Formats: sequence, C-alpha cells, structure tokens
Amino acid sequence: MSTYKLKFLPYDTEITVPEGETVIRAALEAGVHVNASCGGEGVCGKCRVIIEDGTVEGGISEKLSQEDQDQGYRLACQSAVKNDLVVRIPVESFMDASVLKMQAAPRRTAHIKEMNFEELKEKGLFVAPVEKICLELPEPTAQDNLPDITRLISYLNLKHDEHRLEADLSVIRKIPDVIREDDFKITATLIRPVRNVGKTRIINIESGDTTAQSYTIAMDIGTTTIYGQVIDLNSGAVLAEEGEFNGQISYGEDVISRIVFAEKPGGLEKLNRIVIKTINQIIKRIVKRSGVDPEGISTITLAGNTTMTQLLLKVNPRFIRRSPYVPAATLYPPIKATDLGMELGEHVRALVYPAVSSYVGGDIVAGVMGSGIYRTEALTLYLDVGTNAEIVIGNKDWLACAACSAGPAFEGGGLKFGMRAAKGAIEDFSLDPVTLEPMIITIGNVRPRGICGSGLITMVATMFEMGIINNLGKFDRDLDTPRIRENNGVYEYVLAWKDETQIDRDVVLTEIDIENLIRAKGAIYSGCMTLLTEVGMSIQDIEHIILAGGFGSYVDLEKAMTIGLLPEMDPDKVTFIGNGSLMGARMSSLTNRIRKDVVEVTKKMTNFELSDTPSYMDNYVAALFLPHTDINQFPKLKARFEARKKNQK
Amino acid sequence: MSTYKLKFLPYDTEITVPEGETVIRAALEAGVHVNASCGGEGVCGKCRVIIEDGTVEGGISEKLSQEDQDQGYRLACQSAVKNDLVVRIPVESFMDASVLKMQAAPRRTAHIKEMNFEELKEKGLFVAPVEKICLELPEPTAQDNLPDITRLISYLNLKHDEHRLEADLSVIRKIPDVIREDDFKITATLIRPVRNVGKTRIINIESGDTTAQSYTIAMDIGTTTIYGQVIDLNSGAVLAEEGEFNGQISYGEDVISRIVFAEKPGGLEKLNRIVIKTINQIIKRIVKRSGVDPEGISTITLAGNTTMTQLLLKVNPRFIRRSPYVPAATLYPPIKATDLGMELGEHVRALVYPAVSSYVGGDIVAGVMGSGIYRTEALTLYLDVGTNAEIVIGNKDWLACAACSAGPAFEGGGLKFGMRAAKGAIEDFSLDPVTLEPMIITIGNVRPRGICGSGLITMVATMFEMGIINNLGKFDRDLDTPRIRENNGVYEYVLAWKDETQIDRDVVLTEIDIENLIRAKGAIYSGCMTLLTEVGMSIQDIEHIILAGGFGSYVDLEKAMTIGLLPEMDPDKVTFIGNGSLMGARMSSLTNRIRKDVVEVTKKMTNFELSDTPSYMDNYVAALFLPHTDINQFPKLKARFEARKKNQK
Repeated sequence: MSTYKLKFLPYDTEITVPEGETVIRAALEAGVHVNASCGGEGVCGKCRVIIEDGTVEGGISEKLSQEDQDQGYRLACQSAVKNDLVVRIPVESFMDASVLKMQAAPRRTAHIKEMNFEELKEKGLFVAPVEKICLELPEPTAQDNLPDITRLISYLNLKHDEHRLEADLSVIRKIPDVIREDDFKITATLIRPVRNVGKTRIINIESGDTTAQSYTIAMDIGTTTIYGQVIDLNSGAVLAEEGEFNGQISYGEDVISRIVFAEKPGGLEKLNRIVIKTINQIIKRIVKRSGVDPEGISTITLAGNTTMTQLLLKVNPRFIRRSPYVPAATLYPPIKATDLGMELGEHVRALVYPAVSSYVGGDIVAGVMGSGIYRTEALTLYLDVGTNAEIVIGNKDWLACAACSAGPAFEGGGLKFGMRAAKGAIEDFSLDPVTLEPMIITIGNVRPRGICGSGLITMVATMFEMGIINNLGKFDRDLDTPRIRENNGVYEYVLAWKDETQIDRDVVLTEIDIENLIRAKGAIYSGCMTLLTEVGMSIQDIEHIILAGGFGSYVDLEKAMTIGLLPEMDPDKVTFIGNGSLMGARMSSLTNRIRKDVVEVTKKMTNFELSDTPSYMDNYVAALFLPHTDINQFPKLKARFEARKKNQK
Repeated sequence: MSTYKLKFLPYDTEITVPEGETVIRAALEAGVHVNASCGGEGVCGKCRVIIEDGTVEGGISEKLSQEDQDQGYRLACQSAVKNDLVVRIPVESFMDASVLKMQAAPRRTAHIKEMNFEELKEKGLFVAPVEKICLELPEPTAQDNLPDITRLISYLNLKHDEHRLEADLSVIRKIPDVIREDDFKITATLIRPVRNVGKTRIINIESGDTTAQSYTIAMDIGTTTIYGQVIDLNSGAVLAEEGEFNGQISYGEDVISRIVFAEKPGGLEKLNRIVIKTINQIIKRIVKRSGVDPEGISTITLAGNTTMTQLLLKVNPRFIRRSPYVPAATLYPPIKATDLGMELGEHVRALVYPAVSSYVGGDIVAGVMGSGIYRTEALTLYLDVGTNAEIVIGNKDWLACAACSAGPAFEGGGLKFGMRAAKGAIEDFSLDPVTLEPMIITIGNVRPRGICGSGLITMVATMFEMGIINNLGKFDRDLDTPRIRENNGVYEYVLAWKDETQIDRDVVLTEIDIENLIRAKGAIYSGCMTLLTEVGMSIQDIEHIILAGGFGSYVDLEKAMTIGLLPEMDPDKVTFIGNGSLMGARMSSLTNRIRKDVVEVTKKMTNFELSDTPSYMDNYVAALFLPHTDINQFPKLKARFEARKKNQK
C-alpha cells in the first residue's frame, strides 16, 4: 500500500500515513488537535481543516458552505488521504505560540510482533509434536508374518529411525483393515514425547499417503472470549481463525464468580459442559472455514488461565480462590480430546498448556513462550492486561511473575459510560488546551456510545498533562467551560453532548471513572515495582516491554506512561503481541522444542503472591497518583511539566 | 489327613491312599482290575472284593447276601478306607500267573505344581506392577503452595524415591477434594512401567491409608471357559476364583468359527460385547465372593489366545485365519478397563498378555511365564492340550513354539459318546485281560453317560497294551466277547450296557473314536518332533514335561506314553500346572519382573508354522500308529511287549 506525507500547519508537524487514512486520524496520530464531537461520523461539522496543498477524497459536507469549500475547507473526518498533503488547522482553534508548544506527543502505539515462523524453520525447530509419516510396507509372507502393528513399528524404526514406539488401541483396532486397503501403503501419525525418555505414540493410521493433510488446532480459552485457529502443519500457516464469547459468561464475568458457581451442586459439570460447547462451536466453524479434512487434525493445543483450564478439564477449582491459593495441578498429561467431549477424531490429543500458579496460568505461560522472553538477554516486562493483569519480569536467566486484580477499567468496565472496544466506543481523544473542546474518535467512526479502555487512558493522560485534572485525578474546579460540571456531587467532563451521541444522553467522564483508572494502573505498576524489588532491581532496569491481550493493540504508549501505567521508556522498545496465549498455543503446535522448554520455564517462573508480599501495599498506595508519588520515576514527564511551567512564566 | 496302606491280593500290590478313598479307586490307582460297570454308583454289584484284614466304612449292599457279607465281601466302590487293609480280588476274576503279570502299571498322574509364592518373596520379586503408598503430606501454606498434584509427586519422589511420575486426569480431578478429606493423608496407587525408561503413573488416590485394600484380578480368557481370580496384593493369596463358559460359545465352538462370525457385519461388535459380558459376570461374582472393596482393585491381567485377545479388544481377527496368518498385534499397551467396557473403577488398568503369533497366544505365553520354562536349564516340553494344542520346547536359552489342531477328542468332542469332564463321564478304565470285562469309574461315581478325554486315553492305551486293539487302532476281530461287536460296519466295544447307564443306551467306544484319538495324539507328537527337528534335537533330549490345560490334571501319564501322545519318560519328570494361562496372569499380577521378562520372552520364542514346515506331514503320518511307526522311540513299551510275548510262549 502507498503511504503519503501530511504536514499540519501551523504546527509544522509531519506524519506519514497509508493511503485512504482519514485526515482526522492522521492528525490524531501526529498529536494535532482538531475539534470533533461526533466520533468521526461527519455530523457535528466541527473538524474543519483547510487543504492547502494536494487533494483529498471526500470531505465535502452540507456543514460546509460553497464558499468554505472554495477556500479549501474540508471536514477532516470525511477526507481520505490519496496523496501528500499540507493541512492547516483553522486559526480559531488555537491561540498563540505558547499553546502551540502544548501539543500532545505524536500518537505511539506498540510495534506489533508476529510469530516468526521463518526463524523456526531456519533454526531447524519446525518439528511439530505430531508428524505424519508415509510408509510402503512389504506384504507379509509365510517367512515374514510379523503382526501388522509390529510390521509398522519395525519399518518406522528401520526407515525413519523412530524408537520407543507404542500404538494406541484404536490404531491396533484399525490396522488389519487399513494396512491392506492400499497394498500396505499407510500413513502413520506419531506424537512425540515432551522429553526424549518418553514414548512416541502412534495415534492414527490412514491408508495411502495422507501426509499432505496434517493439521492442528491452537486455542486460547479466555474467561471472556475463546479463540481458535486451524494450522497447517506442513506450512505453519493459519488456515482459519474464529473467536466466540465463552458461553460461561452468563455464570459470571470473572474467574472468581465462575469458581463460586462451580462450587454449587452440579456447577462444575455445567460450566465444563458450556465451555466444551463453545469450543466445539469454534472447532466446527474453523474446520468448515479452512476446508480441511477433520481426519487430518491430530492435536489441539489449549492455553487458558488456571481456572479456565480446571473448568475445561472438569477439575474442581474451589481451592484456587482460597488462601493459600492452591491449584489442583499445573502440568497436565496429553489427554484424548474425545475424553474431554471435544468433537474431534478419536485419535486427537489435547495438549494443555502448563501453568505456574492459581493466578499465573497457562495463558501467561503460553505468552511467555510465544513472545520468547525466556530466550532474551534483555530484562523484559511482559504485561497481559485484562480484568486480571498478569506480570512477568525476567529474561533467559530468571523469570518472576505475579497476578493482580486490575478491575475492569481497562476493558471499559465499572465506568459510568464504559464499554468494550466495540463500535461507538471512544477510542481516541484530544483536547483543545484553550477552549477545552474535545476531539473524539470512535471505533467505526460513528457517534459515541461510551468509552473503551484505550480512550480512557488517553483522556486521563491528556487532561492530566494539560492540567485539567491534578495528580489526584480531580478536575480543576476553576476552569471556565460548560464541559466541566458537578453532577450529584461528582465532577465530570462532558465528552459529547446528548444530541451528538447515539444514546440521547451526555457522554461524560467522571472523577469516579478516573479514580477507577488510577486504582487499576496503580495495581499494575505497583505489581511491577514489587516484583522488581523482590528480585533486587528497579523499574529503570527494564529494557523491553511486551504487551499482550486485547488491551494493548491501540493504547497510546506515551499516554500510558503519562498516567503511570507503564514505566517511561522509548516506545520503540514496546512490542505488542496481541493474544499471547493463542500465539503460544500456535507456537507449541509447530515446534516440539517449545513443549520441551515449557516445563523448564514453568519451573523457572518464580511466582509471587502479591497479597502476601508486604511491600505490595506500600507500592500500591504510592502508585495511586498521576503518574506516581515519586515523579522522579517519570523523568520525561517531569521535564515536560518543568518546560511548561517555564513557558507559562 | 491320615493315609492308609492297602494290599491287594492275589497281586501282592500295595498302595497308600488318603482316609476316605474308596477301595475301587485305590485299586485303580494301584493298577488292579476289579469288574465294575456302573461307574461307582453301587448298583451293578460287580465290584465284589473280600476285606481280609482291617475294616471299611460302608460297602454293604442288597447286591450282597448275608452270607457274602459274613465272608467279608464288600462292594469296592461303596467301601471307604479308614485303616490299613488287605483286600482280595475274588478268584473268578482272573485266571493264572501269566495273567497276573499282565496287570496294568499303577496309575500315575502328573505332580501338580502350584505357584511358588514364597520363592517370589525370597527373591525380592514380589513387587507388583501396582503399588499403593500412603503419605502424610504437609498442609499448604502461603510459603509452600505447590499445586496439589505436585505436592503429591514431590513427596513420592522425596520420601519413596519414585521418579518419572505422571498423574491420570481422573486423579487430577479428584485430588483437590481427596487430599483435604483426611488432613492431607492420602494413599496413591502407582502403576509401574514395564521398563525403567517408561513413566510411573498415578492411577488413583484415596483419602487416608487404604494400603491394606490392594487387590488385582487375574483372568484367563479361554475359547470355551473364562476363569477369574481376585488376588490380595499384600499377601499374594487368591481370595476368590470362578469360571464361566465364554458366552461366545453359541457363535462357534472353536476360534475359526468365531473368526468367521466376527467377519459378518456387526459380528465383531457382538462377540466383543458377549465376552465382556461374561467377564463382567465373573468380576461381579469374584468381587462379591471375596468381599473386597472394588475400589481397592487396581489392575486386571488378562491372558487368552490371539483370537480371544483380539475379540476382547474389538480388533478384527479376520487375517488370523488367512495365510500367512498375521495377527493385528502381539503386544498391547495398558488400557483402561472401563474403555473395554469392564465394570471396574475408572482407574483400573487392563494388562493384556502379549502373544507370539496368530496361534501361539497370550495364554501360552502366560503359561511359559507362569511355569518358568524360560528360566530353566533343563530342556522342557510345555504342552497345553485342548482343541488346539500349543507346544513350547526350550529352556532359558531358547524357546520354539508351534500350535496344531488336535481336534476336540481330548475334550471328549467328536466321539460317539464323548463328553466334557463332567459328572457321569468315564474318566478311568481297566480291563479284565481274560474276560475282557471292564472296570469303569466315572466322575461323581454315578452311572456312565459318556467318555471324557482322560478316560479315552486310558481305554485305548489299556486295550492296545492288552492286544485288544492293534497298532492301527482296530479291534481284534477274533476275540470271543459280546462286548466287541460290529454295528453298521463299525467295530465297537461296549463299555456299559444300556441298563447300567444314565442314558438308556449302550455306551460304546468305536474304532472311529480311536481313529480320532490317534489323529489327535499324532498331531501333537509330530508337532513336538517337528519342532525338535527344526532346532536340531531329538525327542530323547527332553528332560521335563509340563502339562497345562484342563486336560492334564487326571491323565494317566503311563497311558499317555503308551498311545504315543507323550514321549516316554519318568513320570516324576512330568508336572501339571493346571490352567497355565491363569497361573501366568496371576504371576504377572504379583511381580513386575514377569512383565519385564515377558517382552524378551516373546521375542525369544521362535514360532514355527507347522503347516509351512515340510517335515511336519511326514512326522504326522509316522505318528498315526499306536504308539508310532518307530517303536524304538518307546523303549519301555517295546520291552513290555517283548516280555509279554515271552510270557505267552
């Protein structure tokens, strides 16, 4: 895709964006404020800009008079970039040079890191846990009348150097007919042991050569959503992917309420049935969409948190939520998928990701494996933020991990107008430093319905940096704008007026919302601090951050650092891996090396129960400020504050 | 029990018998003929003897006048021994000194060899494949919150030096509750791998200390009958044993007809269901009779021929009966008993005895293991005679095996009045050399209904040695007795007249019956010969014979040698082990060493397909005589014949 350069005047800010991007999103990326109230739908008519050089596609609206249009005015949210542009933000929207310097930093999201499949191949690590081998066996004679299965095993041994082989009963049942179907030409599916000492099992046989049909399923069993992929084991390619809400949601949003339900009579069985149902729905859809022969699927690798894993395996999770928080198990043997109720072939093995503890589960271990922290030199912070935040800090030599309850703020929960990252959610935000008018961008460019996690972070960071809210998260009561008001004793900022929204009510950000965010970010930051203290290091030692989870994809990193959610660091050193659990599951499906390493890694991962670590509460209280009681931990922000003070003098 | 000495006059033969034995059976054991037609029921009144010294219990009958009684006459079959006796056989029943010398050899049955459990203990081999271990685990704390299963595994490792442990999913499912039921005191059931490289699996856990309740089931899956035992793993004792006809019998008497039925649509599934049903009936009964807690049963070891094993496991046996006679498998992995449909705990593992080939199955391998041939120095012949006869020859250095179809003669099948060894079957026989009147002893001492295998052998051997039948098995047409007659062109000997029987018909032995026996013994003897020839040895090299199967228990060894079924040898060197398959299954249940050895043993057992071995047919034809075309192979018999000729001159 072509990219084009945009220059925004009078800021003299430049940015390069892909063809087709709207001018308003380009401005936002560049940190340039343009008033906008309708989320990008084109109905408020506020985002007027002048195209001084180049031309845009669209941008004309009844909100612009013919005269405006002739002067080059366009609506930024309706204008698509198709060549280099010089765009002027109209003079009425800003005041003087001092204000110019108050512009926000350009938007910086994390680099997205894809799984490096080629690297696996180059390093010779693309040896999947299952392999199909085709053999043309000699026909038995009176002199050579080995049992069918012994014939197969002998030739696997002789021709393919496979040892310690053992066949499933189902294979023994099939072999007399299957071996003779295509003149003793058969394909055997082998599943290798995690360690060399174990046995390699023959889990399936098919007549003829079916090595081209070799597939696996990777699955992330999330508390909220379950994702599955069909993967071609010959190429490593993802052939289909689908996500679906975990059917257990109706029995509780978070793991604790699921455990509570599981403790009721029949509750465990019910939750188990439901999650298996969701899994089967996803399997059905991805198998259909990928068009693969289901018989060719040999394994399903599943990663989930400890509670989800125990519910999946029908293991009572009761003691996960009771001190001292003991899971039933953290390592699971390979299990027949049909024994778990999965609608897959009788031969298919379910490989369940090992966990570390009750609150650092297989999903996080999968993320650690998928992201490769355990192989890096650099001290890395791995953060999977959802309702629960899991933190891993370490490198190839050591790994410390902890889980903390962040609350639902990052997923838009617990806010007055909070919502998930769905159509109509305000996902980005900017503020005119003088008029305090907002620039609102919603998912889907429609009128706003609410605020999602990334929008919330940006709002609070922007307001804090502009001095609209103080380091306690309270609005400056002296500001002269109708957007800041008191409502039943609670101060709030009106993001969009009633008639600009989809919901016929003012959409607001309240001080209580801000408080929730501060608590959530405080829990995470103090979790990191505590882990670091426990291992004798400090936050400045972190060289690399990896973000995982749905949360991380659109978050403005500078903003996340401004509110003190992430430690300050060059945004280039922050990587986003998306669904780390799914990535790890896929990786394990492709290379047996990961399955070998993972057992060592889980042993290496030292788990800290934050609630039992005395310094955690101190660190938490210290983190209940924007960005932190100790501003010295955020030197860049401190410098910006000092620069502004100087400017204002 | 006390034993008493009996002297039979005028033969001057002595024998020692246990208290309560009947005088007629004592005579038979001693080789002394007494006419008897009613099987021992006391109604024919022919077995009159005179008690010359000592007294008997019973023996009075309306068949004896008061005068007879006063003279000391008693009915031998009704007289029980309770002290030393001198018994005279009435003079009318024999003629002169030359006849006296024609008396039969004393009855010699094989020594019964029981499993030597004490030896296992002494040699430190009493380490069952499953073991229960009780542990008192420390309660988890915040500082020590290992997952439940890891806690168990760690302490098994630490306190009991158990390594490479892996837990079943069912154990993981139970552990959170079970471990807390009795304050972290639990009993784990471990199943050890066959070889050291494998994993030890934790298959069950129970709260508290249940090590005293540790049981196993051993089972012989015969084509005709299935036997099961409950065994106490702490003492090695058999707590209960039951046998039951294999329900598959209605679908064919022998393995070939079962295979034919299994090839019909749904046939395999049906035969599988039926055998599992019989197994479940036996399990239910032996569990009830032994009174054990079924939860304490951890394994079931099953031994059967290759066809029975495949039907048990629902593996198509189609190719077992087709050249080149290829079984699906000869080695089976441990299988969950519930996966086979057995009504046992979810944790119970079915351990299936490995086989050698399509016709040398797990039952024979079990017999080899149970009898210990594979550990002896002496060259041993192991013979399991049923409808199929399996032959193993060898010692600790090598083992050769073969199977041959003996036909049903040894089980009383295919004879005009043949029957299984059940009540009313003539099991023993003697003949008055002058009058040719028989002495008939039936199972249960009731009037005869037919002839069972051991009776048949004794009859033919006795008649052959007395010259009533020649070496082709034909009756001497010149003998003057109403008992030998022609009936529809076939000569026969009347064993019991119509009114002496239960069936209101004369019970006879025909030349066709004799022919069947000659073919059956010929098949076995020539099988042994052929095996020996193939390994470069001769029948004289055999130092020890082990008989297995229901057949061997009551057979008169001298008689079996006389007809050429067994090679001539000191009867002291013949051992009877009863159901070798069941004995091997029990042995394997008690010592894991057997499970380790058996894999090596099956590899060492060289199988010969007799039908593909050219010398077999020659050997077979040579063996279709009494005892054999080459009388020099039976030097003792030859000497007796020569002595008799000299006498008759």
